[in-house]
Amino acid sequence: MNLILLRPDELAAAEAGSHRAVLADRRLQHLREVLRARAGDEVGVGVEGGAIGRATVVALDAHAAELQVRLSEPPPPALDVTLALALPRPPTLRKVLQQATALGVKRFALFRAERVERSYFSSHGLHATAIAEDLRLGLEQARDTIVPTVEIHPEHFGRFVRERLPALSEGRSLLVAHPGAPTPCPRAPIGPATLMVGPEGGFIPAEVAALAQVAQAIDLGPRILRVETAVVALLARLSP
Amino acid sequence: MNLILLRPDELAAAEAGSHRAVLADRRLQHLREVLRARAGDEVGVGVEGGAIGRATVVALDAHAAELQVRLSEPPPPALDVTLALALPRPPTLRKVLQQATALGVKRFALFRAERVERSYFSSHGLHATAIAEDLRLGLEQARDTIVPTVEIHPEHFGRFVRERLPALSEGRSLLVAHPGAPTPCPRAPIGPATLMVGPEGGFIPAEVAALAQVAQAIDLGPRILRVETAVVALLARLSP
Repeated sequence: MNLILLRPDELAAAEAGSHRAVLADRRLQHLREVLRARAGDEVGVGVEGGAIGRATVVALDAHAAELQVRLSEPPPPALDVTLALALPRPPTLRKVLQQATALGVKRFALFRAERVERSYFSSHGLHATAIAEDLRLGLEQARDTIVPTVEIHPEHFGRFVRERLPALSEGRSLLVAHPGAPTPCPRAPIGPATLMVGPEGGFIPAEVAALAQVAQAIDLGPRILRVETAVVALLARLSP
Repeated sequence: MNLILLRPDELAAAEAGSHRAVLADRRLQHLREVLRARAGDEVGVGVEGGAIGRATVVALDAHAAELQVRLSEPPPPALDVTLALALPRPPTLRKVLQQATALGVKRFALFRAERVERSYFSSHGLHATAIAEDLRLGLEQARDTIVPTVEIHPEHFGRFVRERLPALSEGRSLLVAHPGAPTPCPRAPIGPATLMVGPEGGFIPAEVAALAQVAQAIDLGPRILRVETAVVALLARLSP
């Protein structure tokens, strides 16, 4: 946790443009147990949807921590890549949400494909609280404050491509990661983009054919990577 | 597992340039339970240190699987980047070994730094069998057969830099990932390289100063990433 993320309603105005916040939840625990903070220490802070800065620990005991917060700069720039991901198994979903959020992705769309197990759509990892937790971990890691959106599209793949994908890719480059595609993944930012990544076993031929009509297939080389590795590798190449 | 990895001593010559192999361990389990293979099915295979190809399942029951193996091509090219990594906590080490092996790294050097907990050097994850397992998982994922080497350098950081790093970087570019460095991480292969990645909390200033004498500091942007994310992002940019 490189940043303690505060909700706007937790900030009370204090002297000289600073704010005051009192924490009593897992962030207090983190301050005490991981950062071993004491009164007078400085920590990184940010406010959800807003600026980042530093906070001085004014007081801290087992029940609460009081912070004097000075917000000074905007969060790091977002990565303008929408990640459309075939819903992976729950532990992989957690890793991808955390890591792609840390890398600056602000919009996720989780879709169904033939090789996605149906049970994944009823997993606990898709509950709003579980997703919010993964996004928060990614933001705290990267000192970001802008919470991504996550859409879940359980409809059939054909319907997703026909009815949802056009809106997800309007005005954006639409790329699909496909091992063996003749075009390599770009090595630099390409402007607004929507990146599709298939399931662990790949898209089936009918899905590849459907996507060939609308998306540019890109390749990451001859090595078959796990979904969580491929997502980080693709986003790293498309990042500024 | 995209490839069943065989040891050379498991191959017996058979007709027409093919080989025969009999499996009775976790690879048998994988064939039965994950791939749900039956007699007549084809699976990807490779031989440690050698070629990859396809195998036909000749017979399979609860006790053994017999494969007819045809080796046809070399494994994917290696990534000529030596990864020198401050020893991370054990779960992170596992992820890095698996993912960097999948990305083609063939040499790892694990070193001590001020922010590396001493207990990590006595963790179970550093036992030869645990390391071999992580390397194997990475190779099976990427359909590779060339087993990386892993060196462990528990000596003091200063001594590591003076006495070990010269040999690890001889004839190679020496890069150190350092958030805020003025030079961005290259976006294309740069020839043989040694890439140093520090501990989760970063190098301390004295370590940064020592490395500034010998290595090119490179930056991945304003977002602070976890070690396992940063390693994949850096290797993805340096990969062909």
